[in-house]
Amino acid sequence: MTDDAAKIIPVILSGGSGTRLWPMSVPERPKQFLPLTGTRTMFEQTLLRASDKGRFAPPLIVANARHADLIDDQLESAGVKPAAILLEPCARNTAPAIALAALEAGSAPLLIMPSDHVIADEPAFLAAVERALPLANDGWLITFGIAPDGPETGYGYIRIGEPLADRVHRVESFIEKPAKAAAEAMLAEGNHAWNGGIFLFRADVYLEALAKHSPAILAAAHKAISNAKREGARISPDEAAFAACPSDSIDYAIMEKADRVAVAPVAMGWSDVGSWDSLYEIDGRTSEHVLALETSNSLIRSDGIRIHTVGVSDLIIIASGNDVLIVPRGKSQDVKKIVEALK
Amino acid sequence: MTDDAAKIIPVILSGGSGTRLWPMSVPERPKQFLPLTGTRTMFEQTLLRASDKGRFAPPLIVANARHADLIDDQLESAGVKPAAILLEPCARNTAPAIALAALEAGSAPLLIMPSDHVIADEPAFLAAVERALPLANDGWLITFGIAPDGPETGYGYIRIGEPLADRVHRVESFIEKPAKAAAEAMLAEGNHAWNGGIFLFRADVYLEALAKHSPAILAAAHKAISNAKREGARISPDEAAFAACPSDSIDYAIMEKADRVAVAPVAMGWSDVGSWDSLYEIDGRTSEHVLALETSNSLIRSDGIRIHTVGVSDLIIIASGNDVLIVPRGKSQDVKKIVEALK
Repeated sequence: MTDDAAKIIPVILSGGSGTRLWPMSVPERPKQFLPLTGTRTMFEQTLLRASDKGRFAPPLIVANARHADLIDDQLESAGVKPAAILLEPCARNTAPAIALAALEAGSAPLLIMPSDHVIADEPAFLAAVERALPLANDGWLITFGIAPDGPETGYGYIRIGEPLADRVHRVESFIEKPAKAAAEAMLAEGNHAWNGGIFLFRADVYLEALAKHSPAILAAAHKAISNAKREGARISPDEAAFAACPSDSIDYAIMEKADRVAVAPVAMGWSDVGSWDSLYEIDGRTSEHVLALETSNSLIRSDGIRIHTVGVSDLIIIASGNDVLIVPRGKSQDVKKIVEALK
Repeated sequence: MTDDAAKIIPVILSGGSGTRLWPMSVPERPKQFLPLTGTRTMFEQTLLRASDKGRFAPPLIVANARHADLIDDQLESAGVKPAAILLEPCARNTAPAIALAALEAGSAPLLIMPSDHVIADEPAFLAAVERALPLANDGWLITFGIAPDGPETGYGYIRIGEPLADRVHRVESFIEKPAKAAAEAMLAEGNHAWNGGIFLFRADVYLEALAKHSPAILAAAHKAISNAKREGARISPDEAAFAACPSDSIDYAIMEKADRVAVAPVAMGWSDVGSWDSLYEIDGRTSEHVLALETSNSLIRSDGIRIHTVGVSDLIIIASGNDVLIVPRGKSQDVKKIVEALK
């Protein structure tokens, strides 16, 4: 056992295609690879969030194979050397992605982090990880429960059960994306958290749970890893084996079925930057290449096209490459209508 | 005397820099050279408006020397062979520009037309020219009075005097760009027209008026033409002589001072396309390169950048080259604030 054996292995998931942030986010370069909330991309921010060498081992990256070069660039930019980069030949959702990582990880605790989330209060997050770690080492599957700041209908909710340790509780139940009234009722009641897709558990515990609840995923992931091509840090799972794997989320495949499932509620300035409106809420700055006169309450970003506004308000204006999106603030979910129309 | 001697010589003035239609209109290619109101540019439309060979001689073009190649292209596109293209080495307003043309024209009647106006009802315009022609041949200076369709404060007004012929009247007075209340009063009273900058007079009559009212302009223009370089249809007036010419408009230099000045009022769907808002009024079509979903009451034009809107209304969105302008409808005059800020 090396020193790293006792350390937490960050597992960074980079599977999303991020079409809700079109035109900047595109399949070739989805939102986690863009510097939307500062000079660092969200992928880099995620790498650096769990880079304290006293606590964390080098990360495992699980990503779409088409992003291999982008990931190399951003690892270098962040100054992070990964344990491995698992390059998925196709998307099979989170349960198989995490299985690939777990099969590379022995019995270390894994901190599963989507690469496209913003966490403004990192100390709060890391403190929650510390609180949950003993239970994870003891065989519990931990999910971090995001303190809800509104009756959002776009997230799953967790009903918080009996306490197991300081601010770590048994999960009483998982609640699917609710209707508005149900979301409001949960918010009024308290005792609920958003399911943010961040997890902590031992690799072997996850694989045991897979064996019990989703053996087909475990078998396919095992075969894909056994026949993987390895080249430096890159691991390319066998394409045919991985393509044959059932596609399922860790929530459906494991968390909602397993017995020892806990939630660590945490308020940490979390956002999944799920729309241009949500980016405006967390970082409304105007980018370079923009001249905005008498312009208010607007999000204006450009990576090159020169945008000039005068006298407008409450607009979202996003320019990328040769495309410009213009939509009223509060309506940025409608970008999907544009993306659909362009297909 | 050739056949053309009795014909009207169109004199097409292309002096404006058109910054009010930025970013499409730029000094290198001002608005008259852009296809804003159809597949033809306004310059081409102006050429073709007076191209009936039974009535009109080949035109004289007076333009900024930097636009010489653009003009050659658009003459060819319109299939028009000019009598000459007078290339101004610098801008000296309309009185000197028309003097250059008049010095090339003998005693023929000249129809002076700015190249950046739209006239929707060309038969009405040509009929007004016919009505005014006998008086012009008789030595009158004729201006065409635009039937006003609102209390515009951006134009000069003409008070219409006693009739001289069918719908041709003596000019009682010229009125500078009025305040709103004065414009409304003139509109309510009737008997007023906008001064649209379109004129009809004999070349020799104009030169005589110049000799009387603005001899310095005549002297400078004469010297500039005498020492001009000639190459094919292109005439390049002497730079030093023309630079020394006083800069003045025909209105101030001649029309407001001369004795025999007449106005031919005419309703002909005229617009000087003085702003993006005014283009919206006369031709609100959306251009290529635009995908507009659930979008209303907006002018969206692009020459290449792909513009995508959803759920917006009452916006002007203009993309040209690498620049995009976004301004509320009704506020397009504020483009000058952008142009100023960019200086």
